[in-house]
Amino acid sequence: MALPLPPGSTIGILGGGQLGRMLSQAASKLGFDVVILDPEENSPAGRVSRGQIVAAYDDPTALTVLGRVSDVVTFEFENVPAASVETLAGAGALVAPGPTALSTAQDRVVEKTFLNAVGATTVDFAQVDTVEDLVAGLERLGVPALLKTRREGYDGKGQVWIRNVSEAADAFAAIGERPAILEAKAAFKRELSVIAARGHDGSVAVYPLGENHHADGVLSTTLAPARVDAKTAARAIEIAEAILDGLDYIGVIGVELFDLGKGVLLVNEIAPRVHNTGHWTQDGCVCDQFEQHIRAIAGWPLGPTAAHARIEMTNLLGDAVDQWAELAAEPDARLHLYGKTDARPGRKMAHVNRVLGKA
Amino acid sequence: MALPLPPGSTIGILGGGQLGRMLSQAASKLGFDVVILDPEENSPAGRVSRGQIVAAYDDPTALTVLGRVSDVVTFEFENVPAASVETLAGAGALVAPGPTALSTAQDRVVEKTFLNAVGATTVDFAQVDTVEDLVAGLERLGVPALLKTRREGYDGKGQVWIRNVSEAADAFAAIGERPAILEAKAAFKRELSVIAARGHDGSVAVYPLGENHHADGVLSTTLAPARVDAKTAARAIEIAEAILDGLDYIGVIGVELFDLGKGVLLVNEIAPRVHNTGHWTQDGCVCDQFEQHIRAIAGWPLGPTAAHARIEMTNLLGDAVDQWAELAAEPDARLHLYGKTDARPGRKMAHVNRVLGKA
Repeated sequence: MALPLPPGSTIGILGGGQLGRMLSQAASKLGFDVVILDPEENSPAGRVSRGQIVAAYDDPTALTVLGRVSDVVTFEFENVPAASVETLAGAGALVAPGPTALSTAQDRVVEKTFLNAVGATTVDFAQVDTVEDLVAGLERLGVPALLKTRREGYDGKGQVWIRNVSEAADAFAAIGERPAILEAKAAFKRELSVIAARGHDGSVAVYPLGENHHADGVLSTTLAPARVDAKTAARAIEIAEAILDGLDYIGVIGVELFDLGKGVLLVNEIAPRVHNTGHWTQDGCVCDQFEQHIRAIAGWPLGPTAAHARIEMTNLLGDAVDQWAELAAEPDARLHLYGKTDARPGRKMAHVNRVLGKA
Repeated sequence: MALPLPPGSTIGILGGGQLGRMLSQAASKLGFDVVILDPEENSPAGRVSRGQIVAAYDDPTALTVLGRVSDVVTFEFENVPAASVETLAGAGALVAPGPTALSTAQDRVVEKTFLNAVGATTVDFAQVDTVEDLVAGLERLGVPALLKTRREGYDGKGQVWIRNVSEAADAFAAIGERPAILEAKAAFKRELSVIAARGHDGSVAVYPLGENHHADGVLSTTLAPARVDAKTAARAIEIAEAILDGLDYIGVIGVELFDLGKGVLLVNEIAPRVHNTGHWTQDGCVCDQFEQHIRAIAGWPLGPTAAHARIEMTNLLGDAVDQWAELAAEPDARLHLYGKTDARPGRKMAHVNRVLGKA
């Protein structure tokens, strides 16, 4: 299929959660049809899309069907098996972002090695395959240090802080003695993130920075545009461009940053997809991260990224969604509900963007 | 079902065109499920909704099913048969707007009689059932005057200008000798419209005025907020409130106005639904007319109506939609494509909102 994809083309999305749902809504605004692949029937995204294939993400038949009906296939999560990407591409679909971006983001050692290679500095780290590796790493990096599984784990899962070398064996056991990474602690003042996009033509668009606050390892709020000096803003753009170009990336990426002050930023991690810390763009920018991602993967020109409003985004987890009626009555609160019925504790049910004023 | 309807409730929409599509997108943003009733398979709205019932709008079985699965049913057009509304209500669904609003807007004589009764002045008019009525009307109202069928007809269809009494019989024949209305010509400076909403609790919210330009009887552009003096703005709000209260209305209404200058406004016609001249609110207001309609019919508090940006909305008719690639490259142009495949001449395919600056 020649790019740009014309309206009426079909976009396939692996994953039917809230990110898939908001991607689908953005795609339909641009006249695209959307087909979701998700094992859960009537997924949040499936309910607002032309169709849903109900199957596992690694089901070869389902992937072949999705690849055949789609002009481009994208993802709402990074842990897409390489074999799935091959099956999709084999069925004739463009896949964006591509396999390099996915495989890089799936392994924390590969990711950090790549980041430092392109000048997007991270904390010091050590590859950990044995308790001996872990002890050596703790001696080199000092304590406290953070032990994480190399693969999977998000929202604070699969990771443990080590405060003393004597805890090494217990900590390694706690993460299942899986291949791991040990990360030095960053003396950061605050956590920022930058949402950026790259098109098929190599053009890059970068949104203003967001300032993020977590609770129990899960994003709680984003304030954006974050108040930053010019040096920090310029450095964030530099980092985003280095990563996007280094991965020959297509689509929107989320880059989590540690702000060390004086314009020094370390990259915490990258997410090769639309990102929770970019939800503020829905009400702060004329072209939000979801439309931007669709534009990028469809070969359309990237949209503008300037903010017209200052936004505080708050995640509504579990039964916090029960506040919907009060929030609906707040004139400056824009509600985004995901259509999930089961408000399990900690589950992302909705978010609210509060308009704080003009940007 | 008690109001406000909680997220997860189902909204039924009669009509699967672009208005139904944008209503469905707004509803899903608030966590509602949507079911469309439309005779065309895979309608623009059906493709972004949880489900579609493919049947005629007056099919009693289809209406009963829609009424049963929906907590509230609404419409994207005004020509809903009274019997359909009864069937829906009989199946247990709330119907909004209600039968009074629909029946009033369906008959131009009833509509104008109602409008004048509530102080929302219109041009002089005459009811026409025979050529004799028409001749008498022309003598009373003068020429030129506009002959329209009482029912149906939109975008300039089913109407004819009469410039001489001698044309009466031909004109009446041209509209099929159907029950008609003869309208005096208004000496207006420009055409405005006001989009307003009323909730179940009687609260009213009114958007800033739009200035409309038509070509061949079809809306071409809306510029909003229109530049108007305080007296005109106040009068528009007064008119909207009188109409909404007079109809005990629930939902969004579009009111087309003739601006005679010096704060004098005549009502041209009302549309008991979201309205093409309100599309600018998608990119000019934080709560657009589609979300506002969903809020109103679901018993939620109405959202804010202030404009944060000045917008020029342009309809893309027929093959004008082929400009999508150039428009996508304009940084201040926000594209809204309807997912229609057949770009017949004059068919509404998309619209573009150009952000002209801050409001």
